[in-house]
Amino acid sequence: MDKVIPGTNLPRIVIIGGGFGGVNLAKSLKHLQIQIVLLDKNNYHTFQPLLYQVATGGLEPDSIAFPLRKLFDDQENIIYRNAEVTHLYPDEKFMETSIGAISYDYLVIATGTQTNFFNLPVDNLAMSMKTIPEALDLRSLILQNFEQANYESNPKTKSALMKFVIVGGGPTGVETAGALAELKRYVLPADYPELDMRQMEIQLIEAGNRLLSGMSDKSSVHALSDLEKMGVHVSLNTFVTGYDGTTVQTNQGETFEATTLIWSAGVKGCPINGLDPEVVLPNGRIRVNAFSQVETYKDIFAIGDIAYMTSDGNFPQGHPQVAQVAIQMGKNLAHNLQYLLKGAPLRAFEYYDKGSMATIGRNKAVADLAKAHFKGIIAWLMWMMIHLLFLIGFRNRLIVLINWIWSYITYDKGSRVIIRKFKRVKGLSDPEILVK
Amino acid sequence: MDKVIPGTNLPRIVIIGGGFGGVNLAKSLKHLQIQIVLLDKNNYHTFQPLLYQVATGGLEPDSIAFPLRKLFDDQENIIYRNAEVTHLYPDEKFMETSIGAISYDYLVIATGTQTNFFNLPVDNLAMSMKTIPEALDLRSLILQNFEQANYESNPKTKSALMKFVIVGGGPTGVETAGALAELKRYVLPADYPELDMRQMEIQLIEAGNRLLSGMSDKSSVHALSDLEKMGVHVSLNTFVTGYDGTTVQTNQGETFEATTLIWSAGVKGCPINGLDPEVVLPNGRIRVNAFSQVETYKDIFAIGDIAYMTSDGNFPQGHPQVAQVAIQMGKNLAHNLQYLLKGAPLRAFEYYDKGSMATIGRNKAVADLAKAHFKGIIAWLMWMMIHLLFLIGFRNRLIVLINWIWSYITYDKGSRVIIRKFKRVKGLSDPEILVK
Repeated sequence: MDKVIPGTNLPRIVIIGGGFGGVNLAKSLKHLQIQIVLLDKNNYHTFQPLLYQVATGGLEPDSIAFPLRKLFDDQENIIYRNAEVTHLYPDEKFMETSIGAISYDYLVIATGTQTNFFNLPVDNLAMSMKTIPEALDLRSLILQNFEQANYESNPKTKSALMKFVIVGGGPTGVETAGALAELKRYVLPADYPELDMRQMEIQLIEAGNRLLSGMSDKSSVHALSDLEKMGVHVSLNTFVTGYDGTTVQTNQGETFEATTLIWSAGVKGCPINGLDPEVVLPNGRIRVNAFSQVETYKDIFAIGDIAYMTSDGNFPQGHPQVAQVAIQMGKNLAHNLQYLLKGAPLRAFEYYDKGSMATIGRNKAVADLAKAHFKGIIAWLMWMMIHLLFLIGFRNRLIVLINWIWSYITYDKGSRVIIRKFKRVKGLSDPEILVK
Repeated sequence: MDKVIPGTNLPRIVIIGGGFGGVNLAKSLKHLQIQIVLLDKNNYHTFQPLLYQVATGGLEPDSIAFPLRKLFDDQENIIYRNAEVTHLYPDEKFMETSIGAISYDYLVIATGTQTNFFNLPVDNLAMSMKTIPEALDLRSLILQNFEQANYESNPKTKSALMKFVIVGGGPTGVETAGALAELKRYVLPADYPELDMRQMEIQLIEAGNRLLSGMSDKSSVHALSDLEKMGVHVSLNTFVTGYDGTTVQTNQGETFEATTLIWSAGVKGCPINGLDPEVVLPNGRIRVNAFSQVETYKDIFAIGDIAYMTSDGNFPQGHPQVAQVAIQMGKNLAHNLQYLLKGAPLRAFEYYDKGSMATIGRNKAVADLAKAHFKGIIAWLMWMMIHLLFLIGFRNRLIVLINWIWSYITYDKGSRVIIRKFKRVKGLSDPEILVK
């Protein structure tokens, strides 16, 4: 049936998504006599934890992306295709994709998540940061706003151009707020001598009662105190109820005038059309059993952020949507697929939590590892080492490291280039929308 | 009149364009009691000589771009605005721009050149390489074509996806052809094991009777022989007469089937609306006298690629459109503006030709310096050193150097990421056009 992949007599495992889950699964299947087909709409793996540094001018996009073909240059049992899946036909065991039909013996859904705006009509107005183009767009918008503020004569407009509201106090929100505070302190005053930088405000909004809710209370407290020392305004127990391009409305009645709304408040799964709707949760995650098998299917699996597994004793509400879970699930599924092909019993997944960490700024970070809590420069050095370790590719590591050393010495963030400019145009309804 | 620049009592010099000419002029005016206004539609200076390496995956775009504001962080008499000039009113001494009206006492046009398709209707089909977005687009297209070739069942289409026709045998054309030949030899076979790389063909078309016509005969001969050894087909005395997206027609009757047509055959000036048409040549260059004054105007100057000066004894047909001319013209004009403000006599521009060079590949380059000709690894090392020297910014130099060392050791080109995909859509008339 499918013309786009050469046929063999070997069992075919199709993996949709080249994130941490898909890549680790595929790598772990290296020595099997099977045909792996890896599909991704991008030709690269994205190191999502550092996207916020691309958005804030600290890193160039190429240094946190790794070409998928290069990643598997030395693996003979894998075929990569740059394709997007449009519909799945589980009974016939094939899927329609942007490049044609592809059949499978086993299917692994590792499509991850996308930004969740929770039905607020802000998606044309709020900036998200889940992909490299999105991070580049945010970088352009931040810089364009300062360019415009320079010659804007209306004081209200000028001030709104220098206000940044970040929604969501998870690691991405905290790290972005910290990076913007550093831009305000070290970088932008020299670039924009005509502007009064005291007008630049960074507002972080979190719906829960503490930042970094996935971490220890100590980390939450330190992160809040560090951010406040850096000049970030933090509103807890607050959620956004509306945004029209300039005014952010909240449930607390408080409003913020800001031209830039950065949305890091939540994600939803990227499910595949054609799956039994029963197995997909309202937030787009897919119910799987302890072996990552999608419920009701024997030949379809899901791993990583999109997998919702409740069988793991320590995580009855599902696992945190972080890289470590995806990596470990990918490796466990590799083991299980191998056993499945042999007819051996499968191994239930148990997440080994190595801890979590978030960086706030120069010499400032928080880390919870095992039962220990770290903060300050030690946590910050740990954060950098671990991120370099998990970044794929020696060249990328070297370039990221040089950028970090460079920024540390010079207090500068070098990648302040607007590669593709935004235009603000009037949308079909009233508010202005951003178009490229 | 103009609200977008704060007024002073100092004479105002407006420079349009932050290329080599504009930047060197502005830097050389650092200590003058004047107000310099630098306008550029991009917020960065582009190091154009290395754009071909961005297009062929050797460098990330941020490493050859330098933020203009950062460049002038320590210069107090300059104001930068991210703006595009739409119309000039020389009698009233002001211009309309994308951000509002700006007046001037002295105006310097340093807008450089754009790709010249010589009225061939190929601009939606041919790829040019004069800007960073264009170089990134070409990088995407090259990689997308190989992705598509992998599953393309029509052998004619498949083969055309692997054919690259480069028009123009100047330095850009020669360097691009060489870089593609290296991709073919060292990088793509591992990335695309399903493809027969012998089908990949690189065809360089030059209208004149030799490559690198601005260099010595020896350099032309070496470049031709090096490229042919690397598997590039070169057609001299040939020019393109048509292209429909797949078939390249030439005046010699020969045709080439290729999905990618790279256009480096010529440039034309980017003049400003509102200038007396008498001073603008058909190729868009602006006639200037020996002091870079635009003919018939006393307060308007042009430097760099767009300036057409015939007064320099050694260059009666105008100067070559290269970085060195722009740099030297910028510096000379800085001297003249200073003298003009004092009422002193101006200094005629004389170009001091330091030589020219082109790289062809690994250990392969040609260089004509003074009266000496160099080739091979010596020319190649000289080429690298000089390009690093003229690249702006220590961080950029370091990252470019690391990429070069990395590529040299590993035979790899690391930046093979398709950041924004092209779509081919049917145009209003027949041929497919590329859209983002």
